Amino acid sequence: MRKRGRFIVLEGPDKSGKSTQARSLVEKLKALKVPVLHTREPGGTSFAEEIRRILLDPAHKVEPLAELLLYEAARAQHTEETLRPALRSGRLVVCERYTLSTEVYQGFARGLDRGLVERANALATGGLKPDLTVVFDLPASEFDSRDASRRHDRLEREPAAFRRKVRLGYQRLAPRSALVLDGRRPASELSAALFERVKRLFE
Amino acid sequence: MRKRGRFIVLEGPDKSGKSTQARSLVEKLKALKVPVLHTREPGGTSFAEEIRRILLDPAHKVEPLAELLLYEAARAQHTEETLRPALRSGRLVVCERYTLSTEVYQGFARGLDRGLVERANALATGGLKPDLTVVFDLPASEFDSRDASRRHDRLEREPAAFRRKVRLGYQRLAPRSALVLDGRRPASELSAALFERVKRLFE
Repeated sequence: MRKRGRFIVLEGPDKSGKSTQARSLVEKLKALKVPVLHTREPGGTSFAEEIRRILLDPAHKVEPLAELLLYEAARAQHTEETLRPALRSGRLVVCERYTLSTEVYQGFARGLDRGLVERANALATGGLKPDLTVVFDLPASEFDSRDASRRHDRLEREPAAFRRKVRLGYQRLAPRSALVLDGRRPASELSAALFERVKRLFE
Repeated sequence: MRKRGRFIVLEGPDKSGKSTQARSLVEKLKALKVPVLHTREPGGTSFAEEIRRILLDPAHKVEPLAELLLYEAARAQHTEETLRPALRSGRLVVCERYTLSTEVYQGFARGLDRGLVERANALATGGLKPDLTVVFDLPASEFDSRDASRRHDRLEREPAAFRRKVRLGYQRLAPRSALVLDGRRPASELSAALFERVKRLFE
């Protein structure tokens, strides 16, 4: 399983299990001595963390297009500084959220023009695409019953209608080649299904 | 001179006289009761000021593409929040620096692909173009003899070779319709030439 870098993106609404499944996958791969990098968006660099701070600061009026370009600036930095070097060096990259999140949240749910979002994604990534996209599907109603003690960030405070749009966005925009898993299944089952699919990347 | 909004952009290297000439033009227009807005990039909004702070903070490693997208995020905000409303309400907008600065500095001088810069500019502005671009041309050697007491920001600390590239970039990339003025001429002459050209926008 060491041939060359592979790029795996985990997607889905908040609390759908992305982080848990990413950790589990990374552990299994490490046990097999596969060189692996676990990262996520937005973030992954000190610069991107600064951008995140601006995005979440309610003191600023932020136009949807400016917000999109800020996310893309963070993505450009993350792609150049983190993703491409890891893939070049042959690592398997497990990334929570990538361009599909922007298509779903800024495009489908917030209503920015889809072509515009696609052009911005292409610009920021230079066309770098995942080898595999995994979507954890979750009904919006599941959100409130999950981990209610967790502190909610700005996006997690959105109303249920927004979360329904996000789910629909993933259903409509996920690439046909994506592996779609029902996020309500037990974590161990999800983990096994994910690992089976990832193994096929190397056959 | 009140028919509808007009969009005038003043461009040129640092210390070429953009701010002085913008103030002078705005005063003359106000004396004629023309509704006018004086603004500049990057900046013009609290959000853009935050972005400027990130760009100038040497603690962050910033990839050229991420830098470009940050400038464009600030531009998108400025265009939507400031430029378009002023133009819609029929004001004459005098803006120091706009998309041509990005073509010259990030594209020509820093070496980012020109098509990429043009796509980013188009994305951020939604295609909003100046009615008139004025370029103040200045030999790189003039820089050191001007206002040496002024505190230099990050760009102004670039070496002379960079400033020569910037001048050449303006010469090559300015639109054919641009008014190019020799920045070494006395301020009063420049001001008169600029005002004559602006008046023609209303004939």
